[in-house]
Amino acid sequence: MHDWWNEPCHMLDESVRAQALARQDQLTKPRGALGQLEALAVSLAAMQGSERPQVERLHVSVFAGDHGVVEEGVSAYPQSVTGQMLRNFVGGGAALSVLSKRLGAPLEVIDLGTVEPLQLDGVSHLRLGLGTANLAREAAMSDEQMRLALAAGRDSAQRAAQGSAQLFIGGEMGIGNTTSASALAAVLLPRSPLTLVGPGTGLDLAGVRHKVQVIQDAVRLHAEHCVTPLKALRRLGGFEIAALAGAYLRCAQLGIAVLVDGFICSAAALCAVRLNPACRPWLIFAHRSAEPGHLAVLEALGAVPLLDLGLRLGEGSGAALAVPLLQQACALHNEMATFVEAEISDRTA
Amino acid sequence: MHDWWNEPCHMLDESVRAQALARQDQLTKPRGALGQLEALAVSLAAMQGSERPQVERLHVSVFAGDHGVVEEGVSAYPQSVTGQMLRNFVGGGAALSVLSKRLGAPLEVIDLGTVEPLQLDGVSHLRLGLGTANLAREAAMSDEQMRLALAAGRDSAQRAAQGSAQLFIGGEMGIGNTTSASALAAVLLPRSPLTLVGPGTGLDLAGVRHKVQVIQDAVRLHAEHCVTPLKALRRLGGFEIAALAGAYLRCAQLGIAVLVDGFICSAAALCAVRLNPACRPWLIFAHRSAEPGHLAVLEALGAVPLLDLGLRLGEGSGAALAVPLLQQACALHNEMATFVEAEISDRTA
Repeated sequence: MHDWWNEPCHMLDESVRAQALARQDQLTKPRGALGQLEALAVSLAAMQGSERPQVERLHVSVFAGDHGVVEEGVSAYPQSVTGQMLRNFVGGGAALSVLSKRLGAPLEVIDLGTVEPLQLDGVSHLRLGLGTANLAREAAMSDEQMRLALAAGRDSAQRAAQGSAQLFIGGEMGIGNTTSASALAAVLLPRSPLTLVGPGTGLDLAGVRHKVQVIQDAVRLHAEHCVTPLKALRRLGGFEIAALAGAYLRCAQLGIAVLVDGFICSAAALCAVRLNPACRPWLIFAHRSAEPGHLAVLEALGAVPLLDLGLRLGEGSGAALAVPLLQQACALHNEMATFVEAEISDRTA
Repeated sequence: MHDWWNEPCHMLDESVRAQALARQDQLTKPRGALGQLEALAVSLAAMQGSERPQVERLHVSVFAGDHGVVEEGVSAYPQSVTGQMLRNFVGGGAALSVLSKRLGAPLEVIDLGTVEPLQLDGVSHLRLGLGTANLAREAAMSDEQMRLALAAGRDSAQRAAQGSAQLFIGGEMGIGNTTSASALAAVLLPRSPLTLVGPGTGLDLAGVRHKVQVIQDAVRLHAEHCVTPLKALRRLGGFEIAALAGAYLRCAQLGIAVLVDGFICSAAALCAVRLNPACRPWLIFAHRSAEPGHLAVLEALGAVPLLDLGLRLGEGSGAALAVPLLQQACALHNEMATFVEAEISDRTA
């Protein structure tokens, strides 16, 4: 069976990359003095096939879904918050809403399935189920649910392309989804859950211990069946995690740079990279969060994130916070004078 | 003798700080989930005496001056670059020019004294001397030069206040000024120059070794005379470093938040804090640079910078890059919904 995510990814333009690198060396600054921002501008140039890259048109999609595993008592917040936050996203009161507005980016809100079905203006309700099944006892998703979730992300990426977006940001909301992301990381890396689990949105020490136990048991239950990344995603993932993976994969196929948020999004990125490794160069990592599992996933992906501010909110908020750095990296690359233009002496050496 | 920098600093509004802290706890996010940005918004609220702080009106001043110590061969660039970069600042081709334009902030360019006197449109030429004296052989500045440089910074802060600026950024340009900053840090911290000196704008290993030797000799020559921070500044500083210290001190007296750039600016901040410790709460540190001395100065000041991108350009560019984070921290603080407003369940615990 042919799966769409196996199709080739867009090729980066290596000759533009070389031109952009040469330009960086002529700008009126010591070589390398802009640190990570130099490589960032050069990568964006190669992705966009333009020596002068731009990150002004953004597409922001936030995916929400509930998690059956919450019945094991792994979250500090009640499950109803997932749905309540959908209203907050469209109402403008959520962190991601405030940041998207400031960036001038429309926010697309996609409900993949909450425990109580909702009908909200401005939300796209796809309703793949009343949340996932409890991964501590059975597979989180059916094969059909997982494919629909991947396709939901794919469709967002396609809308981004239709709007000529230069950057895609995926956000997520789902009470319990750090448990799902930790279980996925434990199986895919692989790593002991003990080294991956943190307080999530605010568990105390006993809560963290219990969460580790739940994930260890889930890994034991599913590990032997997780012979492919797709099976791991179906058994341990969530609707929103599958959608993010689908969005990242399609963005890479369509040639749209992706800015990956925190732990949940990075777990989705890990799934995407395992499903189709050629998508990796299209993923830019926004920040290192306070969740221990995030560090392990970033290391496995060879990612060097831009920010390290102790964020642990999710939603896509860390990615939105990093957007100005991408824009500034492009502005510096595009607008700074060269040594010749400014008639400035280059180094004597 | 009464020195203006000893006058009291503006008091932070502790009751507004408490209100802002309480507001942070009511916003629709787990407590602490915005990491460093929460404390940042709360600090800005206390500085501005407003529960809803704003960082939209910026004042950016870049101070340039030459350094006599360059004759010891401590820089990879010829000394003429200081003056050439003045033209690049007003011409819009320098990194700080590009970033200031993007931020909508006018850029004030102040020439405190280059080796060859210049006359450039858009530059304020104060001409305190043809660069400083060579600190490897004698005191870098006369007492009068140092006082005029401090006053130049003070005057910039006063213009910022006249323009109702909500944030002051000081930049710097001066070939050789990492040598001066390293010598100041070595004496004020105190620390061995060996642990402070890095490649600056691009020295090779032999160059770094020679620079360490020059600084060690300078410290030996001046240390016993550096009985006050003022004397250390006069003997080992530069025109632009003194001006930055003066600007930071006056901003604190006038109640304007300061965003401190990299190593040179942090060395100036160290001087300012040693001259009048009450200025410390007004200083926000933008980034951790690639220069080893910067880390030592940040630690001594108890500073936790916002960015860590391997920057080593100076000019104020790292501070300009961090401005959107301050603006986003304020937007989140001011515009996010509270749990009550959004009718969202708070945590069960």
